Parts: sequence; structure tokens; C-alpha cells
Amino acid sequence: MTETIPSILAPLKHDITEVNRILSGTYTGGTGYMEKIFREVLGEGKRIRAGLVILVARMFKRPLKEFYGLAGAVELLHAASLIHDDVVDGSGIRRGYESTHAKWSVEIAVLAGDFLFAEAVRMIADLRKPQLLGMATGAISAICAGEIEELMGEHAFMSRDEYFRNIEAKTATLFGTAVQMSGLLARAECQQIERLKEFGYAFGIAFQIMDDVLDLVGDERHTGKPVGSDLASGVVTLPVILYLENGGASSYLDAVLNGERTPEHIRHAIDDIRSSCAIRAAIAEARGYTNRAMEALAGLPECRECQILYNLAGCIIDPCN
Amino acid sequence: MTETIPSILAPLKHDITEVNRILSGTYTGGTGYMEKIFREVLGEGKRIRAGLVILVARMFKRPLKEFYGLAGAVELLHAASLIHDDVVDGSGIRRGYESTHAKWSVEIAVLAGDFLFAEAVRMIADLRKPQLLGMATGAISAICAGEIEELMGEHAFMSRDEYFRNIEAKTATLFGTAVQMSGLLARAECQQIERLKEFGYAFGIAFQIMDDVLDLVGDERHTGKPVGSDLASGVVTLPVILYLENGGASSYLDAVLNGERTPEHIRHAIDDIRSSCAIRAAIAEARGYTNRAMEALAGLPECRECQILYNLAGCIIDPCN
Repeated sequence: MTETIPSILAPLKHDITEVNRILSGTYTGGTGYMEKIFREVLGEGKRIRAGLVILVARMFKRPLKEFYGLAGAVELLHAASLIHDDVVDGSGIRRGYESTHAKWSVEIAVLAGDFLFAEAVRMIADLRKPQLLGMATGAISAICAGEIEELMGEHAFMSRDEYFRNIEAKTATLFGTAVQMSGLLARAECQQIERLKEFGYAFGIAFQIMDDVLDLVGDERHTGKPVGSDLASGVVTLPVILYLENGGASSYLDAVLNGERTPEHIRHAIDDIRSSCAIRAAIAEARGYTNRAMEALAGLPECRECQILYNLAGCIIDPCN
Repeated sequence: MTETIPSILAPLKHDITEVNRILSGTYTGGTGYMEKIFREVLGEGKRIRAGLVILVARMFKRPLKEFYGLAGAVELLHAASLIHDDVVDGSGIRRGYESTHAKWSVEIAVLAGDFLFAEAVRMIADLRKPQLLGMATGAISAICAGEIEELMGEHAFMSRDEYFRNIEAKTATLFGTAVQMSGLLARAECQQIERLKEFGYAFGIAFQIMDDVLDLVGDERHTGKPVGSDLASGVVTLPVILYLENGGASSYLDAVLNGERTPEHIRHAIDDIRSSCAIRAAIAEARGYTNRAMEALAGLPECRECQILYNLAGCIIDPCN
């Protein structure tokens, strides 16, 4: 049987329930408007980031209570960045639902992200370790600065380097910071914290590459968004870059990249990419990063949790996930 | 000679230079894009919030260095909220310049606000007093939740109560929190911190009422925005509410409130409001709040700084300011 992320994280079910309770506590009560906005945003999701935080805590055999707070804060930061990123990318669909700005408005999305960000910071501040806030805010500043550079730059087309800088800012930095913070809170040794960060970072890169691959080859019922939604909103991802690097010539893709983003052009462009070796090449790149993530686990306490991290890294490069 | 905010804050000139140095440190270096975006946003402004923070520090005779950090953080929070609020309100002009979203894009404005917010939190975290972060994040959560409630509510027209809730979220909460945080950092007694918070809050309400009055009667060269810009973007402020409460009947204002926001309608509507007693009544409301602010200063150390706070409160209700 193929392992999936939910099946691998199943042993953490009780922990994730605790984290979910913290998350719903941020928006329940009051007049109910907040609940309307946040229930979908915070109610769904595989809680991979929270899972990583908890696994590190268990690895170092620490009492879990304060790690639930950290895991909740990391999920809030993730949700805040999703809400704002959807505004930045103009994405209308998120996890099969309308994104916040599409469902309510850009105004609500801006405020909703700010609110979650403030709540996340409050929860991290409650852990009484100023270094954690330094890590979290350093990550957010870097993420925003990276995205600003990206937007301000004048590119007709995204290069391979730009793609990696982009997914680093979009995904890998927060994964890396999540496990780094958990390592610090667990009082791991400096070198171990570095390894954890390296694991999270490489895991995050692989995770995002596979997310981008699934946007082209995945099942809408599974991914929660229509096939080709990246191309449809003008976002160029690794498979497209590899397709072009390897001499792929598709008049449909050219048209899409020149702004002619009709459903038909997109469908044919995807067919052309799929029949090339670009998808396989992109998965091979992702595998390179999961290997780096697995290698980073050496030097950490050998235990069940370490094995789970290993399995998670292995599982994300399975395109059936 | 009429005192102005800059003339009253003149004794703090050296301190404000230090704060400005911290602010420009957040965006200099790198490829220069950040500087392009932030130079105008952070380069201008009277630094009233920073001034209040410094005055409290001086009142309690504390070494100023860490207060420069707090003052910088408060100005960053203010700038972040301006940038995001301009997106929320759709305002195109800020301090005589195009607002960030108008000049660059909504995307850049979202990221720029997030970046400044993260930098502000980092600076507060560096002060190593978790309570400060609790205050700051509590304020931001309350501000965002208040604005979300406002946007989600279904009103054809803003009531007096709604107006005050709105300016509390928009302005008074951050003023109150700024002096409260400074009092805590200055190790003032609990009761003194409460009085400082009350001062900042009442000062902020009066400040915003006068800002709204000046939008109708001010000089564009002075306010940095065209006369009537609130009405032009559909924002109803206290003078308008008082005009209608007191039986004012202006067909032009009715048309503007029903969405007919032509320059001519707005000009005539403003004339009608100006020739009523609504402006004077709004200033009287502001005066009530400056009185509350001045009363809150009793019980604080009698000193030159306390007198400056007193003068500031007195000066903001002068419509020539």
C-alpha cells in the first residue's frame, strides 16, 4: 500500500486535534464574522508544518504543551501567507474553496492575513523565547523581500534560478524555520538545529516542486484546484522551465506564455509538456531535494519520529500523493 | 505665535534623527527596490508616535537607546497599517504622494506592509520584554478584527457609534498602545501606565477627528491630500454625521452618499457642510477628547515632558494645524 501524508501523520492524530483546538480558538466568539472567514481557511489542511513541529518535540522527548502553541503559530503564519499570496498571485481557488480575496474581497483578505499574523506572533511571544521571534520575523521579512524583488524585477519569463528563489521564499523558508524553531524550543544542540533547518528547507523545496508538478498532472479532486491553474494565472513552474530548457517547442505553450490563456490553449500546452520528459525531470529534481532532506536527518537521535520524517520526505515525491 | 506639532516636538529633534536612522536601516542595501518603495513611505511624517514614546522615556529619565528601537517599531507598525489601510480604503493619495498600492500595485502594498510588520515585531522582540509583544499584537488583532467587522457589516451609512469604533481601530488603539508600551519599558507604575494609555487613546481619537475635519476644511498643501478625499472615496466622517444628525439637508450630500461622487457634487456638499455648524460641533467633540487626554496626565511626574504632551494635545484641535 502506498503511504500518504495523512497515513504517515496518523500517529500524531491526538496532537493535531490539540493544535486544531488552538487554531479555532483564534476566531470563535464575537459576532461570528471572523468564524465565517476563517473556518475554511484554518479548518482544512494536512497540518504538515504542525506535524513537523510535533515530531521534533517528540524526538527530543519534551512535554508537548508549548509545542502545540508553536505548531499552531506556524500553521497561522502559513495560513496568513496563503491568504496574502493568493492576493499577490490573483489565485481564485485554494484547497478546493474560493480563496479569501475571491470569496470576500481583497480588503478582507489583507486584514484577515494581518490578523492571523498578529495572532501567530502573540502565540510565539507567549513561549518566552525571544530567539524564536527573531527566527520567525527574519523568515517573514526574507519571504516578503524576496517576493517584492520578484515582482519589481522586469522579466518576461522566469528562469530556473528565479524559480528556485521564488519557491524558497514561498515555501521552503517557512518549513525550514518551523523545524528550526521547534529544535530551539526542544533545546536541541546547535548542530542538530542546523540539521533540522536543512531538513525542513530541502523538504520544502521538494514539496513545492511536487505541488507544481501536480498542478499539471494531478487530479482536481485530490489537489483541490483545476489542472493547469498555475499556467492559467501566468505562473511559470519547473516543469515548464525544464520543457523549454530541453528544447521543447509547443506553439500552444508559446501562446499561453504570451498571454493567450484560453482553456483550450492551456489544455494543449499541458498535453505537450506531459508527453515530453519534463515532468519526469522535475520529479528527479524533487528527488534530489528529498535525498538532501533525508541526509540531513543523520546526526539526529535515531528514533521512531526520525523514521516518520524520513518517510514523509520519501512520500512527497510520489506523484500519487 | 500658534504652536504647531513640529514646533512642539522640536526639542526631540536629535532623538527623531536617531529613530529615522533606524527606519532607513530597514530598507537600505540590497538591489535598491526596497528603498524605492519605502523611502517615501518611511521618509516622511511628523513622527508623532515616535515623539510620544520618547517623551515617556524622558519623563521617567530612562536611557534612550532602547526607546529609539520601540519608537522605530511603532512608526513601522503605523506605516504598515497605512499601507494596508490604503488598500482597504482604496485611497490613492497619502501625505501628498501616491499611496503604495496606487504607485506600485496592490501586490507590492500587501507584501510591503507585511515586511514592515515583521520588522516592527523583530525590533520589539529585541527589547526582550514579552509583555510588549502581547500589547502590540493585541492591538493589531483588535484593529484588524474591528475593521473586518466594519467591512462585513451591512450598512448603508455609518452611525456615530460606528464612526467612533472605526477611528478607535484606525488610530486611537495604536496611539494608546505606543505610550502604554513606552510606559512599561520605562518601568512606570501600573497606574501610570494606565494613565498613559488613556492619554494616548483620547489623544488619538481627537487627532483622527481633526484629521477628518481637515479633510473638509484644510489646505491641500498642508494636508497632502485633496479637499473632500474622504467623501470622494465614500468614507463618512464625524462632520457629515453631525450635519445629518442636526437636520442638515443637502441634496448634493444626499447624491454623494448615494454614490454620485462627481467633483462638483462633492464641492457643493462640502460647501453645505461648511456653512452649517457641523464643523464646529466636530471640533467640540475633539476638544472633549483632548480634555480627557490632558486630565489623564495628572498623576504622572510633573516635568517638562508632561508639559509637552499637554501642549501637543492642545495643539491638535487648532484647525490651523
